[in-house]
Amino acid sequence: MTIKLVGFPISTATLRVIICLKELAVPYELDPPPSFQSIKDDDYIANKHPFGRIPVLFDDDFRITESRAICRYLTSKYQGKYNNTILIPNDVHKAGLVEQYISYESFYYDPPVSTIVFEEVFAKKYVGNEPNAEAIKQSREDLSKVLDVYEKLLEGKEYLTGEFSLVDIFHCPGTNLACGTVTHADLWDKRPNVKNWWNRLCNREAIKKSFEEIES
Amino acid sequence: MTIKLVGFPISTATLRVIICLKELAVPYELDPPPSFQSIKDDDYIANKHPFGRIPVLFDDDFRITESRAICRYLTSKYQGKYNNTILIPNDVHKAGLVEQYISYESFYYDPPVSTIVFEEVFAKKYVGNEPNAEAIKQSREDLSKVLDVYEKLLEGKEYLTGEFSLVDIFHCPGTNLACGTVTHADLWDKRPNVKNWWNRLCNREAIKKSFEEIES
Repeated sequence: MTIKLVGFPISTATLRVIICLKELAVPYELDPPPSFQSIKDDDYIANKHPFGRIPVLFDDDFRITESRAICRYLTSKYQGKYNNTILIPNDVHKAGLVEQYISYESFYYDPPVSTIVFEEVFAKKYVGNEPNAEAIKQSREDLSKVLDVYEKLLEGKEYLTGEFSLVDIFHCPGTNLACGTVTHADLWDKRPNVKNWWNRLCNREAIKKSFEEIES
Repeated sequence: MTIKLVGFPISTATLRVIICLKELAVPYELDPPPSFQSIKDDDYIANKHPFGRIPVLFDDDFRITESRAICRYLTSKYQGKYNNTILIPNDVHKAGLVEQYISYESFYYDPPVSTIVFEEVFAKKYVGNEPNAEAIKQSREDLSKVLDVYEKLLEGKEYLTGEFSLVDIFHCPGTNLACGTVTHADLWDKRPNVKNWWNRLCNREAIKKSFEEIES
């Protein structure tokens, strides 16, 4: 068995899969494309991702795209094989709630976080643009409302569904970059339950090691 | 066992769950909130959906929110119980590909379709606004690019992953309303594989019956 992950650790979607692989202790090789631009080439679109995106995972001959789908696949196939970490519980109700929180992450939490990350990190570093102040302001407002709800949802809980699961992982790459910008860490810091949840995640070995891959 | 679905069939997210319930032949009761506005009330937010959305499903005492999460839950729990329809295959690779296509639906296909539906159907009917022509133009351009990829992905296939699955259902509510506006049906009609796929879905008994609920 050879697992090959096509992507760059600085991409939040790629890092989502890296955390999942490390949490499940699944051995893998990282195989970055020649450049960011090359993922729009005809060959990449024909043989890797039809929409020209990263990441793509090859498990021997089986190819799968899209970070959240890849993580669900890895969990279904490898959970319990290399360690005892449970990312999706067997219980149908508990698994349903993991999916419910994944939906909150994908449609409410991630859009404003992604805008902040794009404007504050990627636009400056890779596009050479000044951040769009209006987009950042709107995203901070949207995210504040979402985090107010999270603050209540996390009351008395260590992780979003109670136990650590795939949905906590899904939040990590974007939060790491958005919190890493000193100007926006206040959004998480001023809400005690949210702050404790985020610190707890940052202290997990697999997550710490994954964040280090961005810096290397 | 009593399954109660809180929502309105005109909401695309609620209709997504209705189609899933009918495809699996799971008995349920529809329990519409008193009004569209009432889902922002404190009581609704505390006891139904923390973000004030529809749909919400109650399976006896178990509560779950978010249409795609609800459909995955229903499939995990009830697939094979009332009929032989398979929405998520047992095979880990096939199930992985259903999730991959759900990601295409959620992040590439649904956003422009939802904008068209909002501007052409909901803004006129419920908000009393004129449609935003610029937003519609941009969504048509975005959706055209997505449908060009779908046209290739559907080559030689009856459904997105080959066999009918949950991901085909996920596309139905938005497509039904967007295609129902005479001005936008051309986007689907001029791509033969996409057109055949959509006609095939519209001819399924459970889907036909679900669309009728909007009109009633």
